[in-house]
Amino acid sequence: MAYYALPKRKNNSGTKHLFRAWPGTKRKERHMIIVFKPHTPEEKVNEISGIITKLGYEPRVIRGVENTVIGAVGDEQMHRSLELLKSFSFIEDVIPIQKRYKLASREYHPGDSFAMIGEQKLGAGTFQMIAGPCAVESLEQVMRTAKDVSSAGARILRGGAYKPRTSPYDFQGLGDEGVEILKQVKKETGMPVVTEVVGVTHIEKVAEVADCFQIGARNCQNYHLLERIAPVGKPVLLKRGPASTIEEWLSSAEYLLVNGCPNVILCERGIRTFETATRNTLDLGAVAVAKRESHLPVVVDPSHAAGKADLVLPLARAAVACGADGLIVETHPNPVEACSDASQQIPSAKFKEFMDAITPIVELMGKIPKPHFDFEKK
Amino acid sequence: MAYYALPKRKNNSGTKHLFRAWPGTKRKERHMIIVFKPHTPEEKVNEISGIITKLGYEPRVIRGVENTVIGAVGDEQMHRSLELLKSFSFIEDVIPIQKRYKLASREYHPGDSFAMIGEQKLGAGTFQMIAGPCAVESLEQVMRTAKDVSSAGARILRGGAYKPRTSPYDFQGLGDEGVEILKQVKKETGMPVVTEVVGVTHIEKVAEVADCFQIGARNCQNYHLLERIAPVGKPVLLKRGPASTIEEWLSSAEYLLVNGCPNVILCERGIRTFETATRNTLDLGAVAVAKRESHLPVVVDPSHAAGKADLVLPLARAAVACGADGLIVETHPNPVEACSDASQQIPSAKFKEFMDAITPIVELMGKIPKPHFDFEKK
Amino acid sequence: MAYYALPKRKNNSGTKHLFRAWPGTKRKERHMIIVFKPHTPEEKVNEISGIITKLGYEPRVIRGVENTVIGAVGDEQMHRSLELLKSFSFIEDVIPIQKRYKLASREYHPGDSFAMIGEQKLGAGTFQMIAGPCAVESLEQVMRTAKDVSSAGARILRGGAYKPRTSPYDFQGLGDEGVEILKQVKKETGMPVVTEVVGVTHIEKVAEVADCFQIGARNCQNYHLLERIAPVGKPVLLKRGPASTIEEWLSSAEYLLVNGCPNVILCERGIRTFETATRNTLDLGAVAVAKRESHLPVVVDPSHAAGKADLVLPLARAAVACGADGLIVETHPNPVEACSDASQQIPSAKFKEFMDAITPIVELMGKIPKPHFDFEKK
Amino acid sequence: MAYYALPKRKNNSGTKHLFRAWPGTKRKERHMIIVFKPHTPEEKVNEISGIITKLGYEPRVIRGVENTVIGAVGDEQMHRSLELLKSFSFIEDVIPIQKRYKLASREYHPGDSFAMIGEQKLGAGTFQMIAGPCAVESLEQVMRTAKDVSSAGARILRGGAYKPRTSPYDFQGLGDEGVEILKQVKKETGMPVVTEVVGVTHIEKVAEVADCFQIGARNCQNYHLLERIAPVGKPVLLKRGPASTIEEWLSSAEYLLVNGCPNVILCERGIRTFETATRNTLDLGAVAVAKRESHLPVVVDPSHAAGKADLVLPLARAAVACGADGLIVETHPNPVEACSDASQQIPSAKFKEFMDAITPIVELMGKIPKPHFDFEKK
Repeated sequence: MAYYALPKRKNNSGTKHLFRAWPGTKRKERHMIIVFKPHTPEEKVNEISGIITKLGYEPRVIRGVENTVIGAVGDEQMHRSLELLKSFSFIEDVIPIQKRYKLASREYHPGDSFAMIGEQKLGAGTFQMIAGPCAVESLEQVMRTAKDVSSAGARILRGGAYKPRTSPYDFQGLGDEGVEILKQVKKETGMPVVTEVVGVTHIEKVAEVADCFQIGARNCQNYHLLERIAPVGKPVLLKRGPASTIEEWLSSAEYLLVNGCPNVILCERGIRTFETATRNTLDLGAVAVAKRESHLPVVVDPSHAAGKADLVLPLARAAVACGADGLIVETHPNPVEACSDASQQIPSAKFKEFMDAITPIVELMGKIPKPHFDFEKK
Repeated sequence: MAYYALPKRKNNSGTKHLFRAWPGTKRKERHMIIVFKPHTPEEKVNEISGIITKLGYEPRVIRGVENTVIGAVGDEQMHRSLELLKSFSFIEDVIPIQKRYKLASREYHPGDSFAMIGEQKLGAGTFQMIAGPCAVESLEQVMRTAKDVSSAGARILRGGAYKPRTSPYDFQGLGDEGVEILKQVKKETGMPVVTEVVGVTHIEKVAEVADCFQIGARNCQNYHLLERIAPVGKPVLLKRGPASTIEEWLSSAEYLLVNGCPNVILCERGIRTFETATRNTLDLGAVAVAKRESHLPVVVDPSHAAGKADLVLPLARAAVACGADGLIVETHPNPVEACSDASQQIPSAKFKEFMDAITPIVELMGKIPKPHFDFEKK
Repeated sequence: MAYYALPKRKNNSGTKHLFRAWPGTKRKERHMIIVFKPHTPEEKVNEISGIITKLGYEPRVIRGVENTVIGAVGDEQMHRSLELLKSFSFIEDVIPIQKRYKLASREYHPGDSFAMIGEQKLGAGTFQMIAGPCAVESLEQVMRTAKDVSSAGARILRGGAYKPRTSPYDFQGLGDEGVEILKQVKKETGMPVVTEVVGVTHIEKVAEVADCFQIGARNCQNYHLLERIAPVGKPVLLKRGPASTIEEWLSSAEYLLVNGCPNVILCERGIRTFETATRNTLDLGAVAVAKRESHLPVVVDPSHAAGKADLVLPLARAAVACGADGLIVETHPNPVEACSDASQQIPSAKFKEFMDAITPIVELMGKIPKPHFDFEKK
Repeated sequence: MAYYALPKRKNNSGTKHLFRAWPGTKRKERHMIIVFKPHTPEEKVNEISGIITKLGYEPRVIRGVENTVIGAVGDEQMHRSLELLKSFSFIEDVIPIQKRYKLASREYHPGDSFAMIGEQKLGAGTFQMIAGPCAVESLEQVMRTAKDVSSAGARILRGGAYKPRTSPYDFQGLGDEGVEILKQVKKETGMPVVTEVVGVTHIEKVAEVADCFQIGARNCQNYHLLERIAPVGKPVLLKRGPASTIEEWLSSAEYLLVNGCPNVILCERGIRTFETATRNTLDLGAVAVAKRESHLPVVVDPSHAAGKADLVLPLARAAVACGADGLIVETHPNPVEACSDASQQIPSAKFKEFMDAITPIVELMGKIPKPHFDFEKK
């Protein structure tokens, strides 16, 4: 395949080697700034300078009248972080000045990368609408939705067979039965499928139908799962955690890439803040920053950010205008009957209207909307 | 004037009357839900029921097998909030189910209201770009900016003579001298001016030049200032506080309206969250909610949200696509020389390019961009 | 055993049954408040009333002059949440008035429950200091620490064999080798062990040594892991997620209890906020609320909250004074050489000093500190 | 007086001088770290180096294989912040490595400073309980409270004559009449008074009775008010803003000190986070950091943090154990009749019980509780 892909490698989790190296990439250089408290005496500075050297870094002392800082340049093979220097009482701060990810960065891959979800390209100029119900509830429900959203122009189907829910008393998804339903709908409509994996024991089953795995927000920093899903070799749509910084989100993407995932699609879905009028606070600044810092495609989930159907459209439009490469939207033939997240699902019969309100902005942003898809032929 | 305006009334702050009534509006009804802990005995429920009646509310008891709640309907002339019931150990929660604002709500005024800033209409279908430097630094700087942004299509000038700064050692603005500079630029270019008031003792001076007062984010809940600036009778652009909920922001707007401010323009500029990659987290969900709940025009400040010039454009586009009625953007003839917020100001020479990237989305949203303005004639 | 324990039941995750019932507990009643927008017409209220009845709830309409609310009483066997009503445009809000957990609540078990970690009682009057290194690095390191903290009066050892780290390039723990080290130290010192499980594939291995499993903050809402670790039948120390509300944290405890975990120990370790001077923001209000709402013991991790060794003591004291049933503290024979979190670990040689500064507050709070433990005999 | 006091100086707000210097203090040195994107070419580094020199800083270039940083040392008389360099596309970040406050720092004044509120010492070893109602409602209410808390051992009275309230329809305080009530109670009981100022026009009136001004949380960054209240020459109790970082809070203290306030008392009262079970999230880590970074006394307001009376005691104890120099607690003769914040006020008849639960921890922390006060003599 011509698109951006990393060579697969074996998952090395559970290893007893202290540090991993990514074969074929250069060692990762590390810069740290060590800030001393004002008027720290010369001998203390020298003491720290010595420790820095012993730990394998090269210290460069910068002295002012009141303040001293040391810039340290090192190599990430060194296993001790200089952050330990914070434990000295005369050290004010230790500031790492480097990103904790590499393969996900634009420095590593300057152009835009893209993912193939089935035969659908996402990113690098092609916009994708991923639509479907929050949870798979029945064959009829998913089939109706798939036909509605497909005829409206969406090319990729979403729908969860396994649902992570806050309370153990809430509906948890149909499980394996849901996977079978997705298979039938995929077979009949030809739409590729994005569906969530909530735990490692489901990977194999979900892989039977998924063209792209989804990692949910609460699993964004579940590294155990990331390390095990990556080597399967399918694209992964990685939702940002509700309390994950952009750097942590990209570091989670790095876990996927370094463990062999061919393509990661970043998905912003709102972060947790003090505001309760919306379910989450959609952080479109993060979309802009992620597009600048990383080559990975970025999609937005306006449904979980909004939590209420009438707020989905304004947030969806905003996301596209901000540069998103796609949207993932919840839709249902009859939201009032939905088993979960009923209030935020768009009626699938109105999905065409929704698409029509989005498409002109997609075009304005210079992206290809509604890519060719021969629904009838399938 | 035909536009939405409230009758002016005298500022009654400092009053010794316990409660205010807004003349000409009906009394504000209040609903509260009192939730008892599971298995609270009958007599405790009756005791609370009695207190509720005594406080002038009408209690309606709803009993389940395990749980009991009371819905209480009252009148806001009653000065005791039922929230005091929280202090009983067998009360689980007391939930107010009503907004704390009225004049700012769509229920009070179903259509969109608009503001006139000088001769420029903002809101109710007309989009305005408000542009100018963060701080007024010199006549040349403001004049150059005004000419650049005006010829690019912006109709309203921004610029602060008084600047609230986190450190007392930072540049605090030119003060009264800045007001004089704004007067000269206004006279020469004919552009109406939006400028900040940071304290009551500056109101009179700033009123000499301001066509619209700006209340900064840190003063969003400075009710003392809101009560005193409202009766001046000019529109007020009210920035949302970095930790203000949408309801608190609208309650601050209510302070302005109830004290005689003719028009309030809400301004979303980002809230404070755990994310540090952007200066603030722009909350476009709040724009959508504010447009739904309130008739007031909503503008967005992408500059303070972004904190970095290259993120301003994507956020500005997103804001427009989300339904904003205008933008307020920082621009400077030479950002590298700016006294404050240098990193987020757009070079005024490039402002036309910026406008051109925004205008198609404004048009797509069905709003009138770049309203007529005869710069040459002035 | 005399202490609070739930009957074990088989993990039923992956089930295709839509809803679970907890055998032997009564059905869970559910109250919802449906709030209409002001001046909603009578027929709309009746329409909703009908839907509520159809969904199996009993509606009680409360009418005011402007506003109407419906209180709905139902039964959780009903699988549709009334939250779906939010999708009607004339509905202002749907407010659930019940907790989403039951077995974790004081209503279910009014007294304090406690856990046995090995032969050590934690909770219900007995205070425990759990101490040890962040990560297991070598036999010498863990043995030295165990001896130091044990002789200072700590009775339970902590230490991670598997470490979840933000970057894939950071030290990930010794894995299985770390488990073997913990086994040797446990054998020699007799101290029971609390150690983290990061994924389901490690449960069996970790169970070889753990007297109590630890679920880390980032896995607090990893329900897949919670469901699988619970049936093993060991106590679980459940860290609060950095963005988990108290209710979500207790709901995660409910996942453990409902799936057969005999004892859950809640652990507050700081939440993520805008403040960066500390690593996290320790939320002692959550300790007070958790103690009030739940019978479960609550311990506090001041090390992760502080992020810096000199802040650990004041936060530890505060936690005890707030009512915590124990502390879990990171300590290391030589913090400067630690592989992870070096800056927040207390030198184990100084651990006695640390304990001595805590113990008087433990006694003041009426709890038994340093319970009997015959280190020499082991 | 022997205690720490700064010389008074005239308020110079409204100045047209660009930068202030604090007479008698040395110039404030400034260090900045400029981080380049990986692989930035040599000539770009040189270009920035030149700009840094031109702006009056001394650049020290630190080169690695991939990355380059510049450490710049300068002088704060230089009016341009190097943060403007962020606007260059090849600059990754510009990191200031210095605090923005000086007079408030321990470097400036290594020992603990204290404040005299009337004849009561607060800080530097003496613990003070400041107690009283949220709002002044009547002479009887304040007198009753004063007598109750005084006989329980509290030495300083609190109570607001002017109340900042979120809604304009809520009780705003008795205003000037409230000041008169406080005067009478002060005269009769001899207790010194802490009371809030919400705006500059009230300073003179409030000064008639206040022994210590209170600046409320929402005015923490109202620099206009801080600059005008400081020169009055009374101590100021400065509440932390709900979204203020510790550094911003200390910078607000700096505004007070630099403008002539003799003593600032920092007051932590909870920050705004996603958690809604408590009214605010009490940040005791901030107390520990403030005590470390600053010489100023720190008190804690557990009432506003808790929002519910039964949570006040555990948070109060925690605050004392964390090192607070005092508490400010809301109490009322009959909370159910309180005009504001009813649910969080402790009945004054039970205040002795509350004090008795706190005092042993105060003593344990080595502080003098209930300092001598001859209530009978007054």
